[in-house]
Amino acid sequence: MDYYAVPIAKLVEEFQKLPGIGHKSAQRLAFHIINLPNEKVQGLANSILEAKQKTKYCSVCSNLTDVDPCSLCSSTSRDKSLICVVQDARDVVAMERTREFKGLYHVLQGAISPMQGIGPGDIRIKELLKRLGDGEVKEVILATNPNVEGEATAMYISKLIKPLGIKATRIAHGIPVGGDLEYADEVTLAKAIEGRREI
Amino acid sequence: MDYYAVPIAKLVEEFQKLPGIGHKSAQRLAFHIINLPNEKVQGLANSILEAKQKTKYCSVCSNLTDVDPCSLCSSTSRDKSLICVVQDARDVVAMERTREFKGLYHVLQGAISPMQGIGPGDIRIKELLKRLGDGEVKEVILATNPNVEGEATAMYISKLIKPLGIKATRIAHGIPVGGDLEYADEVTLAKAIEGRREI
Repeated sequence: MDYYAVPIAKLVEEFQKLPGIGHKSAQRLAFHIINLPNEKVQGLANSILEAKQKTKYCSVCSNLTDVDPCSLCSSTSRDKSLICVVQDARDVVAMERTREFKGLYHVLQGAISPMQGIGPGDIRIKELLKRLGDGEVKEVILATNPNVEGEATAMYISKLIKPLGIKATRIAHGIPVGGDLEYADEVTLAKAIEGRREI
Repeated sequence: MDYYAVPIAKLVEEFQKLPGIGHKSAQRLAFHIINLPNEKVQGLANSILEAKQKTKYCSVCSNLTDVDPCSLCSSTSRDKSLICVVQDARDVVAMERTREFKGLYHVLQGAISPMQGIGPGDIRIKELLKRLGDGEVKEVILATNPNVEGEATAMYISKLIKPLGIKATRIAHGIPVGGDLEYADEVTLAKAIEGRREI
């Protein structure tokens, strides 16, 4: 047990609970905060509270948002015939970073995982199907993670969607750009060969 | 610019200002916090505010503390004839971790650095000299950092202390335990040879 003044010890402990922050980093952050001017500390604490208080889930796409429906769902410049299904709000940020996708999103808030007791009813599949009812959506891109749970979820949703006459597509697996064939695992490499295209 | 809801973007920005936290970590922390239960978020924000509000400098040793004088200065089990001079409150934590030192501390809150415009009057040297006046202190261990500023500060203080009849000592430089001679820089190695002892 390290020696600290009580309020510092408490802060170090709180920081250590955060993901990716070990004891050394927590200590560094705590001392940094104590050396900050009062108004900066207040600003940080307020941002934490406000992010929690003001953020809710979009009633349409289940993405995190401060306005409902979210700015993506209410945008007039997005292609409403295309929905990209992702597991997590962070995935929306990653997709938006590509600047390639101009459709709408649907955040499942998880993936089907029998091992963890998460069934189809526990993630936002029902909400997705409701959005597909009005005939406007022509294609659903299943962009769940390329692991067992993500694949199972994509498969499950595609089976529900196809009878509705809506195209269900899956994002491509393959060698990452800038990656090295030598270091690619065999499953990825097999997927990359399977998904080869004529050039 | 990434796409986020406004309160999330603000929190990511706040986290990015902290030391050792890049954009990816800031994003991860922000989403983690949004997914925490309300009371945990409140707890984190409170710890930040309390650490800042309740922590002050000890009027004796200038260490960070919530009670004045600090628990180290007011302890009856510490050797009051020995003062270890360090630059920073974090150094006290590091020294206490060794469980070897049983004396008192004095935190300078910096080191003399003409390059950064920090002179002897800008750090807590005056306060140290005041503590040495009552004749109780027999030895001052100068544990400032082993760089130009730390060495200069140690040298400066030792010159002020010696005329008072108080022993001034400097922590040893050498090869870190578990370190490798091959990778030690030449200055450290030279110091290690210079500081050799009979075994």
